Amino acid sequence: MGFFITFEGIEGCGKTTQIRRAAHWLSSTGRDVVVTREPGGCPIADDIRAILLDARNSAMVPLAELLLYAAARAQHVSEVISPALAAGKVVLCDRFTDSTLAYQGYGRDLDRGLIGHLNALAAGAVKPDLTVILDCPVETGLSRAMARINSTSAAREERFERESRLFHERIRDGFLALAAAEPNRFAVVDGSRGVEETGVAIQELLARRLAGR
Amino acid sequence: MGFFITFEGIEGCGKTTQIRRAAHWLSSTGRDVVVTREPGGCPIADDIRAILLDARNSAMVPLAELLLYAAARAQHVSEVISPALAAGKVVLCDRFTDSTLAYQGYGRDLDRGLIGHLNALAAGAVKPDLTVILDCPVETGLSRAMARINSTSAAREERFERESRLFHERIRDGFLALAAAEPNRFAVVDGSRGVEETGVAIQELLARRLAGR
Repeated sequence: MGFFITFEGIEGCGKTTQIRRAAHWLSSTGRDVVVTREPGGCPIADDIRAILLDARNSAMVPLAELLLYAAARAQHVSEVISPALAAGKVVLCDRFTDSTLAYQGYGRDLDRGLIGHLNALAAGAVKPDLTVILDCPVETGLSRAMARINSTSAAREERFERESRLFHERIRDGFLALAAAEPNRFAVVDGSRGVEETGVAIQELLARRLAGR
Repeated sequence: MGFFITFEGIEGCGKTTQIRRAAHWLSSTGRDVVVTREPGGCPIADDIRAILLDARNSAMVPLAELLLYAAARAQHVSEVISPALAAGKVVLCDRFTDSTLAYQGYGRDLDRGLIGHLNALAAGAVKPDLTVILDCPVETGLSRAMARINSTSAAREERFERESRLFHERIRDGFLALAAAEPNRFAVVDGSRGVEETGVAIQELLARRLAGR
């Protein structure tokens, strides 16, 4: 079996940049690495992602949103993550089940028992061996995310960034609560620093957790 | 409260034609009628429908499919069906929860307990007052459905019609089993006859069930 690492955190925490760095470093040590993301990661789940992140879909009810995340995850796990782990690869995933708990549970106040149930249904036997929370203050994250939106053509993917500041505070608190409840699986990394400094911290963490595997 | 009527049956059973006729007749009696369909019925659910029915999505795993139906239903119920019923309208819906049980449960052999759970979650407090099964032999339905596909531009919506004949037999049996288990909610109408004859039978059924309401 391979090793499954998920990266979580609020918008603009630096996940995507750090995953790219981590993948590069892991590959350089000779490991077979797969980088993927949620929602998405395969064509059907990418189609679902387009619906979820489209700013025009503001009429979406929270339950429909939750079920779309679960659908995308079920497809992604079975088409991409499970086969890669079965082939012994290290899988790095940008967001996974904990994002659903943080955004839909802590953020939108949907029933966390129901979310846990759907997460377990969609993920099946797959559970992260390590979950890295890139933690940073909400204002830091949102200003990075806004800068990215303004500089790219990702304007239609901005539905979440438009949400209120308080919403993102609840999500950050949610991630930290999840990490506190499962200290063996989670590692909280300070993502408010520069790319280089944060990258070194993550590299040290991965070296430690993957030692001997 | 209004009155919620769902129409169910295998491909080519004549649902869509008969719903149009029934709506026309109900309107002529002075009732306020809403015609809708699943999957779909509102913009977000229509986007989900496009993913579900796209013949290119043959890699879709059954669990993802099930969750997509539930997501589309949650949105449709809360955006369209519930408000219409609350406003006292008669809602005619082309497919609903029983199609999920017949196609995913009986057809694809997914756990029917799980499907029932997701159906109840997505439909919330909404339950059909009457479900009309338009029953016809599989060969009759499929030859009608194929004629429709060949004569229209709906070529990308043919994923289900491509399935094996045996699959559709299981679905027909599933609908009949559901009807037998809940005789008060269901009415099985012979859909193998011509449009006019079937239409008269449905009109008599609706007149009887809606009498005094």
